[in-house]
Amino acid sequence: MKKSFTHVSGSVTAARGFRAAGVSAGIKAEGNKDMAMIVCDVAATAAATFTTNQVKAAPVKLDMQHIKCGKARTIVVNSGNANACTGPAGMVHAKAMATAVARRIGCPIEQVLVCSTGRIGVPLRIVKIQAGIKQLLKKLSRTNGHVAAQSIMTTDTFPKEVAVRLKVGGRTIHVGGIAKGAGMIHPNMATMLSFITTDAAIPRAALQKALTVAVNQSFNRISVDGDTSTNDTVILLASGLGGSAPIAQFQEALNFVTVELAKMIVRDGEGVSRFVTLRIHSAASERDAEIAAREVVNSALVKTSWCGGDPNWGRILAALGYSRATIREDKVDIFYDGLAAVRGGEVASTPLARIKKIVARTAFTIDVHLHLGRGHCTMYATDLTEKYVEFNKGE
Amino acid sequence: MKKSFTHVSGSVTAARGFRAAGVSAGIKAEGNKDMAMIVCDVAATAAATFTTNQVKAAPVKLDMQHIKCGKARTIVVNSGNANACTGPAGMVHAKAMATAVARRIGCPIEQVLVCSTGRIGVPLRIVKIQAGIKQLLKKLSRTNGHVAAQSIMTTDTFPKEVAVRLKVGGRTIHVGGIAKGAGMIHPNMATMLSFITTDAAIPRAALQKALTVAVNQSFNRISVDGDTSTNDTVILLASGLGGSAPIAQFQEALNFVTVELAKMIVRDGEGVSRFVTLRIHSAASERDAEIAAREVVNSALVKTSWCGGDPNWGRILAALGYSRATIREDKVDIFYDGLAAVRGGEVASTPLARIKKIVARTAFTIDVHLHLGRGHCTMYATDLTEKYVEFNKGE
Repeated sequence: MKKSFTHVSGSVTAARGFRAAGVSAGIKAEGNKDMAMIVCDVAATAAATFTTNQVKAAPVKLDMQHIKCGKARTIVVNSGNANACTGPAGMVHAKAMATAVARRIGCPIEQVLVCSTGRIGVPLRIVKIQAGIKQLLKKLSRTNGHVAAQSIMTTDTFPKEVAVRLKVGGRTIHVGGIAKGAGMIHPNMATMLSFITTDAAIPRAALQKALTVAVNQSFNRISVDGDTSTNDTVILLASGLGGSAPIAQFQEALNFVTVELAKMIVRDGEGVSRFVTLRIHSAASERDAEIAAREVVNSALVKTSWCGGDPNWGRILAALGYSRATIREDKVDIFYDGLAAVRGGEVASTPLARIKKIVARTAFTIDVHLHLGRGHCTMYATDLTEKYVEFNKGE
Repeated sequence: MKKSFTHVSGSVTAARGFRAAGVSAGIKAEGNKDMAMIVCDVAATAAATFTTNQVKAAPVKLDMQHIKCGKARTIVVNSGNANACTGPAGMVHAKAMATAVARRIGCPIEQVLVCSTGRIGVPLRIVKIQAGIKQLLKKLSRTNGHVAAQSIMTTDTFPKEVAVRLKVGGRTIHVGGIAKGAGMIHPNMATMLSFITTDAAIPRAALQKALTVAVNQSFNRISVDGDTSTNDTVILLASGLGGSAPIAQFQEALNFVTVELAKMIVRDGEGVSRFVTLRIHSAASERDAEIAAREVVNSALVKTSWCGGDPNWGRILAALGYSRATIREDKVDIFYDGLAAVRGGEVASTPLARIKKIVARTAFTIDVHLHLGRGHCTMYATDLTEKYVEFNKGE
């Protein structure tokens, strides 16, 4: 199928009307960039999805109120501190961040969205944040999308950014975004932030629907460690400065942007050595396909076997079996990059050495056919490595 | 509360009427002991619980049929091969094991229970198994409970056995058992086998009920890696040769035996360095307490922080939040060995250094108070270590 868009360089400032900045405000001990801002020249139409965790960080609670107004001028972000589990002071700090920006930009406080990411339970150093906001406002530019992507990183090893261009009649429309991972990554939002901008003019309800669809097939289909964070946020701002776009064409571009960012988060998972695409086919239902896929990609034993390059399909069968999805052991086929390892629940005739060669690769695809219905689910996952443990065991 | 029983040495042969044996039949490549047998002189009353995994090993399927007769003379076990995901041949092999034993013991095939543990998906070498059975029958003795405990080990580093003695009027009753872990360990049965014997005379329905109660507060309350195996089996045989016992007193002794065995499995978890008792208090319901406890002890991020001696309670709060249990962030208190780390969802006044000292220990208790109701759940868990990954990544 021919794509109706072109992959271009750039990210959140690819679309008309957006400027960005990133600075070091001294939140991170090591002095790395730790604050970012994205500003729209006009009040952009805004859509967002937030963590499903019942324990929500203060900025998430604030944004859930602000997003109701349907418009946003600015996203302000700090890394290095999640401002989560910080009690009433946490909300005071989140509001102070929004107020400081709103006053300087000259917009209602509701049009400022605030995001934080980093350690949980540590009070935010609001004076440093306020000084950072002043710096950010001075540095806003059309070319700083990359710096903004760097500034929202926590344990990420590379900035995550992608942009596409659509031709709509004689006009050009852009969709671009940035994201950060890289631990506490799990479907249903994880410590994962992503900011996407477009110059398409899309009514608010349609924009929210498009974002929900895109998130469900991208950020909600990845897993690094199965932990869902208190801070996950995806925000989509539409400046409208490029004019309207057919929603199907916009959705296709948005899906691409979100899937690319989601895959980058998985590839940059803390200490991972394998990128595994798991596809569940012919489950009894879509829900069953998703449930089965999640159990497999969250199984510590499946993930460690990938790390060791061991095609231990027995662990996959076991994980399918203890999932709540309906499984008929004697119907299950499992393929590694197209080679059958399991047929009808038993070892297939493919020599093990050939399957081993596939699992030795840094990226491979596992197809599981349940032969029970038409449910399908694709998930992007990682292995579980000694490095992941080493990475997360300290503070 | 004074216990009505005494902890004594011994295991499955502590109770009258039971003999055991363990041998090396050549199933394990390295030549370690890999077959065990427990025989009762009379047809014992039998109760059992099995894995909840939909993918069940052939011996589990066979035992689920055999246990219906309510009586058993023999348990025969091999380690080194799970006989799971082995198709129709797997069932043929499981039946062949039972038949070989039944013929030699002189009992109906239904009175033989078969267990296998080890790698999934590899055909069982039935000729070696049959030779092993002959050897086992020759070595049965009242003193071989310890050897049987050794012979069911897979990745276990020590045999797991416990026995208690009850005084009932002027008579003595025994309850004793053996178990094996040590990976794929998760509540709701894991690659976990346990065999318990008693000389109490207990009617079958009461025996099954007592076992279910005991398993639910022991083997179903432990977690090493969150994976539920295809082979989990707990069998309880009652010879009746010691006469009847009050069921409450028997239950108390059985609970002790199963909890002690369960804790040994956790302590011997693959590559673990911490033994953590997690208690959820005042959840909205018992179900909520269990759901919350499971999410915490299965969180990769929580478990890695324990490994690093990092009292990262933010990860515990996050795990509680993404569980399906009802949580009110501002009501949550968290204690480490009695010291408050979190009060009302925020950091408590206890100096972090003091909490750190507790998490540096090899065993500690975390108490979480949700202040929503009367639900309670205790779980025994481990940390997630580099060694666990190293251990499980190879074949």
